[in-house]
Amino acid sequence: MMESNLKFFFEPKGVAIVGATPQANRGGNNLLINVTLGYKEAIYPVNPKYKEIMGIKTYPTVSAIDGVVDLALIFVPAAQTPGVLRECVAKGVKGAILENSGFAEVGPEGEALQNECNNIARKGELRLWGPNSMGLIDAGKGYVFSFMTPSLWDGLLKRGGVSLIVQSGLLSAGFLFTIMSHKTLGLAKVCSIGNKCDITEIDLLEFLLDDPDTKVIAFYLESFSNGRKFFELAKSSPKPFVLLKGGKSAAGAMASVSHTASLAGNYRVISGAIKQAGVLEADDFFEMMDIARVLEKGFGERENSFKAGRVAILTYSGASGIVTTDYLEKFGLDLAVLSPATIKRLEILSPAWMPVKNPVDYWPAMEKNGPVVAMKEGLSALYVDPNVDGVVINLFAGHGVWGFDLLELIDVIKDRKKPILSWIIGLKDNVENAKIRMEKSGWPVFDEIHRLVKVMSVLLQNR
Amino acid sequence: MMESNLKFFFEPKGVAIVGATPQANRGGNNLLINVTLGYKEAIYPVNPKYKEIMGIKTYPTVSAIDGVVDLALIFVPAAQTPGVLRECVAKGVKGAILENSGFAEVGPEGEALQNECNNIARKGELRLWGPNSMGLIDAGKGYVFSFMTPSLWDGLLKRGGVSLIVQSGLLSAGFLFTIMSHKTLGLAKVCSIGNKCDITEIDLLEFLLDDPDTKVIAFYLESFSNGRKFFELAKSSPKPFVLLKGGKSAAGAMASVSHTASLAGNYRVISGAIKQAGVLEADDFFEMMDIARVLEKGFGERENSFKAGRVAILTYSGASGIVTTDYLEKFGLDLAVLSPATIKRLEILSPAWMPVKNPVDYWPAMEKNGPVVAMKEGLSALYVDPNVDGVVINLFAGHGVWGFDLLELIDVIKDRKKPILSWIIGLKDNVENAKIRMEKSGWPVFDEIHRLVKVMSVLLQNR
Repeated sequence: MMESNLKFFFEPKGVAIVGATPQANRGGNNLLINVTLGYKEAIYPVNPKYKEIMGIKTYPTVSAIDGVVDLALIFVPAAQTPGVLRECVAKGVKGAILENSGFAEVGPEGEALQNECNNIARKGELRLWGPNSMGLIDAGKGYVFSFMTPSLWDGLLKRGGVSLIVQSGLLSAGFLFTIMSHKTLGLAKVCSIGNKCDITEIDLLEFLLDDPDTKVIAFYLESFSNGRKFFELAKSSPKPFVLLKGGKSAAGAMASVSHTASLAGNYRVISGAIKQAGVLEADDFFEMMDIARVLEKGFGERENSFKAGRVAILTYSGASGIVTTDYLEKFGLDLAVLSPATIKRLEILSPAWMPVKNPVDYWPAMEKNGPVVAMKEGLSALYVDPNVDGVVINLFAGHGVWGFDLLELIDVIKDRKKPILSWIIGLKDNVENAKIRMEKSGWPVFDEIHRLVKVMSVLLQNR
Repeated sequence: MMESNLKFFFEPKGVAIVGATPQANRGGNNLLINVTLGYKEAIYPVNPKYKEIMGIKTYPTVSAIDGVVDLALIFVPAAQTPGVLRECVAKGVKGAILENSGFAEVGPEGEALQNECNNIARKGELRLWGPNSMGLIDAGKGYVFSFMTPSLWDGLLKRGGVSLIVQSGLLSAGFLFTIMSHKTLGLAKVCSIGNKCDITEIDLLEFLLDDPDTKVIAFYLESFSNGRKFFELAKSSPKPFVLLKGGKSAAGAMASVSHTASLAGNYRVISGAIKQAGVLEADDFFEMMDIARVLEKGFGERENSFKAGRVAILTYSGASGIVTTDYLEKFGLDLAVLSPATIKRLEILSPAWMPVKNPVDYWPAMEKNGPVVAMKEGLSALYVDPNVDGVVINLFAGHGVWGFDLLELIDVIKDRKKPILSWIIGLKDNVENAKIRMEKSGWPVFDEIHRLVKVMSVLLQNR
């Protein structure tokens, strides 16, 4: 693959903000603030009404700018867009991100306007991103080329390996705030692609596949711009793709037409292609993030040796072990048949009256030996069993005798060859704290058993 | 129905705590502390090693107690239990809660011990609760007849209308702490029934059906003691039943044998009966609580007029509206076809370029008129539409222009004839706060779209 030609979006030399305004809480003001927070090269606000905004020299038009401009971020009323784009072409701008709306998503008139923009750009060798988009974020560099409220994201951007391609403007923002404030998912690039009038998920995919920061790519898509190409890239990609497809139902597909002017396509046809290409499918937003954050931790890529789905459960509660077992069946996994050596080893700490089998109800052993000693030994015994492909831990996060550090426990595992996924229950704050600490060290923790088992099935079966 | 004969468990005159100990963090110490925190009548610790514990006169045996004892809470090694029960019979104790383990759940020897206990009790007209149980909690009275860690629950018990019957000891506690610290579910009685050697879910059901505090009954069961009776009660009950059945899969059923010595039964057979009896089925712990907390708010009982499943979606984001729509189909609900009058009304606030249809993407209207004005009007228009049986709201909980009070918005609805369920996204703390405030006023809020739609389907279809 040649070097991607979209570098000017991600590492622009000079950025114009067309529609910048000093009025607080307006998109054009948010956009300017956001860019200044992370981007350290030349910034050119454009608005004929002002000579300067936030102390930055402001230009009446793009062509009046006295410096190189690779990228224009556009937040003006839809009808003014063609004029702005003509200016951009004249100025030699390489890319424009249209963060305004009122185009193909609002009907035939808007569609005509969008086509007009497209024609101007194509002739002028200007690449268009959007419209109806929330822009671009690069968490690694700290670039926020987006109009989302600055006070909400500032200080929360957590750098990591998950890149997102999202075909929705507002949702990208709401969703991003959610992700960031949960503090469990690290982000590389976030691309809100809107109506995809020129730049599509395929263009961005090609860029992200070459991007060293991106380890996992997660998508919310309502339509495929080039399904064939998408699935080809998925098949050959060493980086996992996680897809939440909007418009699976007939009614949902209809709704997506007005949302991002997409044709959602027949989902049954697409669904087969998704599976064949090894794309991991999510059904809900948090599920998408849960799958992505676990894949980012590398379980999905190492060894590729655990293709079988034999799961051991180490639990403090019989009931949660049973419910976990029920979900294994639902998601096509098997309850591992523990090897005799493992049973023997587990029985050493378990009182004589407690028969050891999978799920391993280790509460009596924890009571007898202390939770840390018992769980450490239980976990390492299950982990090394050749009949076990993945381990589920069910634990209570408490204090007092229960106030042990889950990290201390899981620290017996050194090589991360098999996934170990934990479900913790207990007082909310304890659970949150344990979760954040565990995640920092690369151990995924879940709130709900069904989600844990779903992710385990993704790790053990699909990769 | 005669007055239930189990009143001595719930409103005992005199409580003995057999196995009480001054040693911190032991079950027998926790139990004593918990009882003293809420129960204001006579408390009798029993332990031959001490003359007093925590300043309370302590007795060597139950028969040595010099006062009336209705209820004995037992936390002694399993093998000592028959002796303690003989004492209880001699003393005329009416009920005993066995919170110790080592009975039928550990194999044939334990089963024999359990049978011995049962025989003693039956002959002596003593009712047995447990063993392998976490006891009984009455949030209304503040009674905690359980060994769970006192510092964890004290101050968190939230009184409400949901009673739980849980066939698992440890889980009941872990789960309870989770529920309490989430602050969204109000509890009436919590009954951890363990091995059900005598007192079963049926006995407790009969009590709870007559209990004025109980509005909804939620169950975690691994087996039915009397399936026929259970389903009869469910059919005739005006109070909804929410059931999480452990051991649905063959492997899960096997596991439940060692957990609570239960025969889980063939789930396919049971599943039909569950549906027929109108029992609402949950698949996971939080799902059970989500269904219960919504039913407690009364949507499920009023009118009984909304048997159809036509749902309107009012959203700030096209994408979340589409994903919600996809889930409607999955859960057997329909996207409502809005009446022309509703469309007309909604169009007044929506800009001309934005066509109004369901899902109602009202972001442009919010931007034009302010979020509160737009959402209030949008919500009331959808709510009164005769073609709409339930409303879903998708919103962003932010600050600045987004920092409006969801309660203010939903306050336009006065009669609560149709369910209105909200999915909120945004910064974690904002979401939590909005959720707790909304829940307090009886408006359910969800973290995930799939859960919201599942609960909507329960409300619109099953009742």
